[in-house]
Amino acid sequence: MKAAICPEEGKHKFVLKTPKGTRDYSPKQMAIREKVFSIIINCFKRHGAETIDTPVFELKETLTGKYGEDSKLIYDLKDQGGELLSLRYDLTVPFARYLAMNKISNIKRYHIAKVYRRDNPAMTRGRYREFYQCDFDIAGQYDPMIPDAECLKIVHEILSTLQLGGFLIKVNDRRILDGMFAVCGVPDSKFRTTCSTVDKLDKMPWEDVKSEMVGEKGLSLEVADRIGEYVRLHGGLSLIEELLQDPKLSQNKLAREGLGDMKLLFEYLVLFGISAQISFDLSLARGLDYYTGVIYEAVLTQPQNDHTEESVGVGSVAGGGRYDGLVGMFDPKGRKVPCVGVSIGIERIFSIMEQKAEASEEKIRTTETQVLVASAQKKLIEERLKLVSELWDSGIKAEMLYKKNPKLLNQLQYCEETGIPLVAILGEQELKDGVVKLREVATREEVDICRGKLVEEIKRRTCLS
Amino acid sequence: MKAAICPEEGKHKFVLKTPKGTRDYSPKQMAIREKVFSIIINCFKRHGAETIDTPVFELKETLTGKYGEDSKLIYDLKDQGGELLSLRYDLTVPFARYLAMNKISNIKRYHIAKVYRRDNPAMTRGRYREFYQCDFDIAGQYDPMIPDAECLKIVHEILSTLQLGGFLIKVNDRRILDGMFAVCGVPDSKFRTTCSTVDKLDKMPWEDVKSEMVGEKGLSLEVADRIGEYVRLHGGLSLIEELLQDPKLSQNKLAREGLGDMKLLFEYLVLFGISAQISFDLSLARGLDYYTGVIYEAVLTQPQNDHTEESVGVGSVAGGGRYDGLVGMFDPKGRKVPCVGVSIGIERIFSIMEQKAEASEEKIRTTETQVLVASAQKKLIEERLKLVSELWDSGIKAEMLYKKNPKLLNQLQYCEETGIPLVAILGEQELKDGVVKLREVATREEVDICRGKLVEEIKRRTCLS
Repeated sequence: MKAAICPEEGKHKFVLKTPKGTRDYSPKQMAIREKVFSIIINCFKRHGAETIDTPVFELKETLTGKYGEDSKLIYDLKDQGGELLSLRYDLTVPFARYLAMNKISNIKRYHIAKVYRRDNPAMTRGRYREFYQCDFDIAGQYDPMIPDAECLKIVHEILSTLQLGGFLIKVNDRRILDGMFAVCGVPDSKFRTTCSTVDKLDKMPWEDVKSEMVGEKGLSLEVADRIGEYVRLHGGLSLIEELLQDPKLSQNKLAREGLGDMKLLFEYLVLFGISAQISFDLSLARGLDYYTGVIYEAVLTQPQNDHTEESVGVGSVAGGGRYDGLVGMFDPKGRKVPCVGVSIGIERIFSIMEQKAEASEEKIRTTETQVLVASAQKKLIEERLKLVSELWDSGIKAEMLYKKNPKLLNQLQYCEETGIPLVAILGEQELKDGVVKLREVATREEVDICRGKLVEEIKRRTCLS
Repeated sequence: MKAAICPEEGKHKFVLKTPKGTRDYSPKQMAIREKVFSIIINCFKRHGAETIDTPVFELKETLTGKYGEDSKLIYDLKDQGGELLSLRYDLTVPFARYLAMNKISNIKRYHIAKVYRRDNPAMTRGRYREFYQCDFDIAGQYDPMIPDAECLKIVHEILSTLQLGGFLIKVNDRRILDGMFAVCGVPDSKFRTTCSTVDKLDKMPWEDVKSEMVGEKGLSLEVADRIGEYVRLHGGLSLIEELLQDPKLSQNKLAREGLGDMKLLFEYLVLFGISAQISFDLSLARGLDYYTGVIYEAVLTQPQNDHTEESVGVGSVAGGGRYDGLVGMFDPKGRKVPCVGVSIGIERIFSIMEQKAEASEEKIRTTETQVLVASAQKKLIEERLKLVSELWDSGIKAEMLYKKNPKLLNQLQYCEETGIPLVAILGEQELKDGVVKLREVATREEVDICRGKLVEEIKRRTCLS
């Protein structure tokens, strides 16, 4: 009633916030985000990737049947008399749709964009409902393990460059998992669901995983124990050799194929000089349905400077694998395009970088301004406008205070606060002499520079930016 | 029935497309998009702007009551047991929400992101339902017209750098419009709706606008004719002086304020050296409700190489203005933060650049790869992997074909197709001699380079990238 009578009063009553599980990025956070993006994009470009973009929403049916149990986390739009639309859940399914729609059979592309999941947010750990994914994928029919090895090299390069401390990339193969399930006596129909349970091994101990297998998934105790023998194994080339000789596994065609490719992959990783950070790990399963071959996940091995209670499950910072069947699901003729790719889990990395930046003394600049155009006396607004305009037109990053008659002290303080390194000071005397007083903010040194030489001198002094 | 019996067969029956009014960006389109973005971002940074980001959706109530009649074009999300959410309609309202929420009273920021409008798409003319906005805004209590003039300088710099041909920036002020309506005899309650009708003058002739005023909006013929006298006026400083002497307008306080500020603005624009492309135009009204002072809109004056039937309404490529009341609508205490900003209409610019690129002979590269690592004989996969890895680790942008034994001709062809300028060729002889054959694709010149000098030599030859 009151709102109806006093609409003006009711107007300010709503909650001033962003939707659940989302956040704004402040200029400081954006400066960190852009640094991280530039490292990742440079790496993708170093590997010769093109980039594409797709709409933030897709037809609902495009996403249907791709994510298994996770489908309930998809955001739907209201049907406003048209199509049924959903926000994209990842970048992989839109990529597959793009390939099928444009009949592309070969591409190496990256895509950096936001995706949406109605998950329970754990924002202090970098888990949001709106978050960035940085995906790199290679589509095409190629010789075994060459693109797969490159994906792992990319993860290695990015994590090394970001300097987040030690990391480990776990590798497995869906064919090895399926072969293992078969020789352990898991019925075919329970492969996928057993896979989901194995996937929980990084978050809970074997005993709990085992009781889920027996209790919820209905496997026998013996079958679970046999799986337990395998999933505790991890190592390198020698473990692969060993399993290739394993009396049971070596009898299974899928497992043999997977192990053969895994051996080739490791040989390539040795040539890339990165095998020390790679672990062939039989407990790695990955959640998504669409993987068909090699799968991998990178974890940080050093505890981060996190809230203590949450530092337990550091969580993965990158993951991916081979999905040879997904594009075929979209193609009218079922024509397959083999794909392998990796997704960098950027939000988690942002959180770590932010904590690092907060802990360090270093001040983060949020602008790139090289020089402030200032005045020493009143009534020089016109002269400041003329000079700042000259600088802009010469490609110099310049600012001036939006006041007619600012005090010199306030102008200098603005530079201190925002990290502007130089001040170009105009005064009556300087105007008469045809010079500008150029001041170095850090050292307070001042030199008169001939107006015609100013641009050159500023460029010389700020050649880094 | 059939789909239920043969689910596998039914699976491929859906439509393979993007939602209505949206599109994918191919690598070629992305190359153009990134070039345009980089010009715009460079300009924003040259003017000392920080950047922020906000979620793609907002609480529905955040957008309510901000867009007038256009509110019906907002995309709503399905309520899935939580908040009522809508996709953002522009970047200005989220910016105002961000300022109020974080109690920020001074900021100069840019924001480049997608916005969503359920409009009738006209995609060949660059009108989409999902499209980018590139916004630059200055918030804060400053001396009159200094930030406003900088916004116009920015539009001028961007349109000049993009080289889209001639352009004109029309300028007006909501206070002048309101004052004009008052002296013409429009009742206060009809100011906004009359404003919307005036806004159509760029798309229809005065006679049609006039009959809408009289027919739909209920103004008298005399009032409409009086408005007609004013809205046909456009010019520069001398027109402003003239109107300041206008016996009717000069009696109106709002108009006097607006004209006084317009005069000051033009003086600043003269100092910036851009007044030749600025036209004070009394027919400019702008659609959105939230403007309170200066408004502007940039149009291209040269007909673009467009589909002939559509080249009539070239449409604006940038627009903006002052909105001093919007932040106060979000602040619990109604505290005001004056703002002025500009939005670059990037999709229209993309369309023009794409047409230009298609018309020109120049081939657009979609990757930045500097060198392809190739082999002259079989069985050199390991050597190629080692070399390409060395190059990546030295920061060189390098690729190799994902084949164990590719033919040299195919490797060279790949370079021709993708524009890779250099090939590093490995052969048995080169390996023995500790050299790599470096081939220039364009000239076909080949030189043996000592392995230890290869990185340096590639960097020297591709110093532009």
